[in-house]
Amino acid sequence: MRGYSGDKDVYLKRLRRIEGQIRGLQRMIDDDEYCIDILTQISAATKALQSVSLGLLDEHLKHCVAEAVAEGGDAAEEKVREASEAIARLVRS
Amino acid sequence: MRGYSGDKDVYLKRLRRIEGQIRGLQRMIDDDEYCIDILTQISAATKALQSVSLGLLDEHLKHCVAEAVAEGGDAAEEKVREASEAIARLVRS
Amino acid sequence: MRGYSGDKDVYLKRLRRIEGQIRGLQRMIDDDEYCIDILTQISAATKALQSVSLGLLDEHLKHCVAEAVAEGGDAAEEKVREASEAIARLVRS
Amino acid sequence: MRGYSGDKDVYLKRLRRIEGQIRGLQRMIDDDEYCIDILTQISAATKALQSVSLGLLDEHLKHCVAEAVAEGGDAAEEKVREASEAIARLVRS
Repeated sequence: MRGYSGDKDVYLKRLRRIEGQIRGLQRMIDDDEYCIDILTQISAATKALQSVSLGLLDEHLKHCVAEAVAEGGDAAEEKVREASEAIARLVRS
Repeated sequence: MRGYSGDKDVYLKRLRRIEGQIRGLQRMIDDDEYCIDILTQISAATKALQSVSLGLLDEHLKHCVAEAVAEGGDAAEEKVREASEAIARLVRS
Repeated sequence: MRGYSGDKDVYLKRLRRIEGQIRGLQRMIDDDEYCIDILTQISAATKALQSVSLGLLDEHLKHCVAEAVAEGGDAAEEKVREASEAIARLVRS
Repeated sequence: MRGYSGDKDVYLKRLRRIEGQIRGLQRMIDDDEYCIDILTQISAATKALQSVSLGLLDEHLKHCVAEAVAEGGDAAEEKVREASEAIARLVRS
């Protein structure tokens, strides 16, 4: 069980949709579609991926981090450090 | 023919790899893998998508925009405006 | 007292440096310096601001959120929700 | 003369406003204001900086790059390469 397990189907559905967008991008390039239209599609896929990240991170803070903090000790500190590093990677990507 | 047509195979290969990463993310969620590991994978896929964007945009400026500018007239202005809008979408996504 | 209070001087020093970068940008524009050099400076100031954000957020999770979670109840949930929204704003800016 | 010279006053005014936001952030930290409110202000300043970047880049493409391309030769290629690198820095910051 993970923080996101309750919404597993939602996340899988969103990722399948993103997979479809990436396949669509391959078709667009194969068909020599206009660069700007391809860029617009990539922006849409990037936003969709970001939104999956933000959802998972929220669940992670709500469940995994909160539980570790409630239990206290070193594990809590480690969980927060790990979450902060994941946020930094998200912000910088 | 598009600005990116010479590197079509390179872009298709990179997108197929990103498609594989998105499928990998679905497997990770299906297997209840650890949230932070999933976030790390999403950051990697996002960076790979961004890098495809930056490559396509560079080709677009080099070829499509440069040609329109060389020909002059309203088409040139329109191409630059369109490129600026695509850049804004990239920066904000 | 806030999560960041122990490092107040560090954050103030970093913000004063960023203020100096913004004043430097005004001088560059006033002196008609080259666009690309100005853009490079803006990227540097943006990264410095982002790094202040990530530091404050880490302190916030470590102190404010962790305390609220340890106390339990609705306040904890509210703190996590608030933090997630702040992260979303950071990622999207 | 630069691409942005016609709008110099507009850019200077926007940067002075951003400078004021950065000074406001210092006051907020000095007054121990709430972390999340500070993060909201940093997001606003970051967006304002980004918007200055996008404006300058648009002017740069419209004037400097377009002129170099119209003149042709190696200078044009160099200008496009330089612009693409600046865009990559913006997207990744």
